[in-house]
Amino acid sequence: MIDATRPVAMFDSGVGGLTVLHECLVALPQEDYVYLGDTAMFPYGSREPAALRERIAAITEALLQRGVKLVVIACNTATAIGQDVVREVAAEHGVEVVPVVEPQAEIAAAITENGRVGVLATTNTVESGAYRRALERQGRALDVIEVAAPKLAPFIQEGSLFDEQTMEMARSYCAPLREERIDTLILGCTHYPLVAPMLQRILGRNVRLVSGGHAVAAAVQRTLKRDGLAREGDEEGDYEFFCTGPVDAFREVATRFLQMPLGEVRQVEFSVPA
Amino acid sequence: MIDATRPVAMFDSGVGGLTVLHECLVALPQEDYVYLGDTAMFPYGSREPAALRERIAAITEALLQRGVKLVVIACNTATAIGQDVVREVAAEHGVEVVPVVEPQAEIAAAITENGRVGVLATTNTVESGAYRRALERQGRALDVIEVAAPKLAPFIQEGSLFDEQTMEMARSYCAPLREERIDTLILGCTHYPLVAPMLQRILGRNVRLVSGGHAVAAAVQRTLKRDGLAREGDEEGDYEFFCTGPVDAFREVATRFLQMPLGEVRQVEFSVPA
Repeated sequence: MIDATRPVAMFDSGVGGLTVLHECLVALPQEDYVYLGDTAMFPYGSREPAALRERIAAITEALLQRGVKLVVIACNTATAIGQDVVREVAAEHGVEVVPVVEPQAEIAAAITENGRVGVLATTNTVESGAYRRALERQGRALDVIEVAAPKLAPFIQEGSLFDEQTMEMARSYCAPLREERIDTLILGCTHYPLVAPMLQRILGRNVRLVSGGHAVAAAVQRTLKRDGLAREGDEEGDYEFFCTGPVDAFREVATRFLQMPLGEVRQVEFSVPA
Repeated sequence: MIDATRPVAMFDSGVGGLTVLHECLVALPQEDYVYLGDTAMFPYGSREPAALRERIAAITEALLQRGVKLVVIACNTATAIGQDVVREVAAEHGVEVVPVVEPQAEIAAAITENGRVGVLATTNTVESGAYRRALERQGRALDVIEVAAPKLAPFIQEGSLFDEQTMEMARSYCAPLREERIDTLILGCTHYPLVAPMLQRILGRNVRLVSGGHAVAAAVQRTLKRDGLAREGDEEGDYEFFCTGPVDAFREVATRFLQMPLGEVRQVEFSVPA
């Protein structure tokens, strides 16, 4: 029997998923959270898929062993490559799963007025076709304009958020989206919310941005409510962090991504390599 | 004759007003902006009012000499102490003025459902009663709960945004607001948007935050449109910076507040001391 007082689990290959956690901490403050950043294997995009699926299964199992009530896949690659594995492992514990891609596609399809939806993502994510397929599943004729932005996430990860070079790069990636007159943009990488104001300025105020964090927070809320697992009361919950790589490196970048105090971070190991 | 292609001017005693500029850059990207940070006289709160009024008049005149189409007072103290002076000087040039306080009061009065509006501000601003009076002018019976947060702005200015100490401080300032069950909070200091997610988490998702930047951007848009001065097209405009203190110190803190590339910053002098 799952208990509403249990924490929500979330994992990612690194720190990007912390923008998803950030939104959940703000939108659903009464919940407890456990976040695992698999930083030892970062980036997932360069790993062999079969091995990665085993790794993801092991992480999911470890999170479930902590008695969590929901598993959030806060990572595009893990969602594309291992969503089914996570669901399988979680189902054995009777636990639901919320991935990043589908909730964004639902929101984008619901809010676009002119039916022209942009997707800004890493090359891997664009090539996986995950967002295009998810948008096609929404039962509405949409024009999907995908732009691969290979250099944007590394720049954000590095911390050079607010310089002219990042702005120029964002401008060049946004040019085709402006030309195609999209009215809705899916931020298809968890790093991008950190430059959302820049993107909004470049695209103009009439384009609505759909971040993974915003969409996931809404999906988590809906899922917990549906299953009678939402935490009652208005007390602030706790959150805690695990990473598989060095703690200090995680802490430094993570604070910038979370935009909240980080508290304790513990290192964990998995015997399954990726 | 004022021309729609002219820039919007904005001034503040320091960098706080850059959160207002940030919102305008995002909400009204097609406009040009000129920002002046009177960093040599920072903070305005500790200056003698009569001298400060002369200083503010000189700054307004200098901005108007540059041929601007609107003057935004992006500073609570300058609005409280010198709003009338700015309006007088601007009126001689036939230019409108948008201050920070009134637009926030309008929005807060319009969106509160339970009529319980919180104001979080510096001690000076709370003691000036400016927000309370502006809320009373909205023609609706409101319960106004004001909390002075003397330590919050200095902490934000310092840059220790995301540590546990800032969070604890925010929690203690929010405690009376939670107790009084406000559903709307005016962020009565231009520094506070930088910790808005923390405040939102502490207060819960049902409390709506009204930042100066958000309210001013809406007021600027409305005023320009009414006067036929809104810039057409969807090209990104320019922005430029002036400060009265050292340029390097301004640049360092300003980048964090603006969350955009800063570009050129020039130092200017005023013969009128404050």
